[in-house]
Amino acid sequence: MPLQYNEYYNERTGLTVGLKKLLFSEQSEYQLVEVYETDTWGNLMTIDGMVMLSERDEFVYHEMISHVAMFTHPEPKNVLIIGGGDGGTAREVMKHGSVERVDMVEIDKTVVDASKRCFPGVGDFANPRLNVLYEDGIEFVKNTRESYDVIIIDGSDPVGPAEGLFEKEFYSYCFDALSENGVLTAQTESPWVESYHPSMKKVYHAVDDLFPLSGMYLAYIPLYPAGMWSMACASKKEDPLGRAAHDRAEAATGIISTLRYYNAAVHRGAFALPNFVKEIISR
Amino acid sequence: MPLQYNEYYNERTGLTVGLKKLLFSEQSEYQLVEVYETDTWGNLMTIDGMVMLSERDEFVYHEMISHVAMFTHPEPKNVLIIGGGDGGTAREVMKHGSVERVDMVEIDKTVVDASKRCFPGVGDFANPRLNVLYEDGIEFVKNTRESYDVIIIDGSDPVGPAEGLFEKEFYSYCFDALSENGVLTAQTESPWVESYHPSMKKVYHAVDDLFPLSGMYLAYIPLYPAGMWSMACASKKEDPLGRAAHDRAEAATGIISTLRYYNAAVHRGAFALPNFVKEIISR
Repeated sequence: MPLQYNEYYNERTGLTVGLKKLLFSEQSEYQLVEVYETDTWGNLMTIDGMVMLSERDEFVYHEMISHVAMFTHPEPKNVLIIGGGDGGTAREVMKHGSVERVDMVEIDKTVVDASKRCFPGVGDFANPRLNVLYEDGIEFVKNTRESYDVIIIDGSDPVGPAEGLFEKEFYSYCFDALSENGVLTAQTESPWVESYHPSMKKVYHAVDDLFPLSGMYLAYIPLYPAGMWSMACASKKEDPLGRAAHDRAEAATGIISTLRYYNAAVHRGAFALPNFVKEIISR
Repeated sequence: MPLQYNEYYNERTGLTVGLKKLLFSEQSEYQLVEVYETDTWGNLMTIDGMVMLSERDEFVYHEMISHVAMFTHPEPKNVLIIGGGDGGTAREVMKHGSVERVDMVEIDKTVVDASKRCFPGVGDFANPRLNVLYEDGIEFVKNTRESYDVIIIDGSDPVGPAEGLFEKEFYSYCFDALSENGVLTAQTESPWVESYHPSMKKVYHAVDDLFPLSGMYLAYIPLYPAGMWSMACASKKEDPLGRAAHDRAEAATGIISTLRYYNAAVHRGAFALPNFVKEIISR
């Protein structure tokens, strides 16, 4: 086992984390899933050498990929998560009392196994509202007859099995699988990693073409490349930046008190894009 | 020369950047100033082993430490910069046509020398409105009889010569050196680096005690620890979050077109603090 984990996102620029112990390592049908005990970030999961989450910073990603859409929808009951095998997104979604059922479609059971074994505080897999399916998310969305209030695309980077999650075709299936006031969120990589700009652009232009309302927002995730992470929010009817979404988040003091990143002001402020980020997704 | 530059901000967690060549290395009276040519970030300056700026990402820090205060003030004429030896903050400040004079008080001439030699696009040292003084910034503010519209504290980390820039006494001198509607900005480290929390708290409580209006805002700086960086804004009269500041930034299309990060929406959005950040500076 190496003493340090290194992920390079720009030639030899990258992140270094001190490691203590290898806890899990399995080459699945799709990818290499590993978990390390680190010196200061708790346990850390990597897939094919890319950081997925650490116990110490996972709250940022999971809160921000969930609550923006969940508070934009007035009463989300049926939620679909594509990917999200560690369970953190489902945990956040199920904090909303209106939620009756969450379908989580994870292609790789190994990710769920690793999370259950090494991230006991992340997943809430025993929750009876959570329905985990080990299937291809793209095929699932294409063929489902369900109608979802919220769809969250919580896949990994646009290499390997998650590649199709950055294609326009996939977002048109999502549009059809959403209810009439449905809301979608997808993770769309770091604006500082130039090799991912084409994938980012593709997703933004796709949701902009397909949905009446769409936008990019940002969150700071220290163990992801460059710390700046982008997400797409697309909506059929409800405005993610509207008064109603803001007021719902502000009124939900029970949920907000459990959160360490998201709040009503952060929801709105996250959509304020620096000039260079706007340029990346401009037509 | 090492092949990689490493800065660790949390035991063995940190940043790694690939290096090509050492361009400048001088142990001054105060600190070790070095400049490397990197593989993808242009030239990189470090002080005592901590990243100060790279050519590729310096725009974020310099725009965000300058324009929030500069647009909060209705017509800044006299500006004081404490530190800022690389010249990038002065360059941004002087984009405002109202500015008649900038006093930049940098304790260490070596930083200015390194910037002039290795960062030709960062400083605008030939500008006749810029007055560079090689003095102790704390003594300067304590003794000055000038009245400044904007003061920007652009010092390094709270170890070594910049330590006093995190003390309440210093902010009371700044208050006295500001005109009746003066505005101040200070860099206040990363909320993800726990060892700096006491310094951050000290600055926020100081400006909150001394100024009628104050707040923290955030910017994403990829080569700084964890990517999340905080700054304090304090004001005697003008509201940094008021309509007037917003409208001034929105109307300044000439300045904004030269910027890659700051805009009117980013100004406002940057003050939306995640819950864990609010906790760090809470009383």
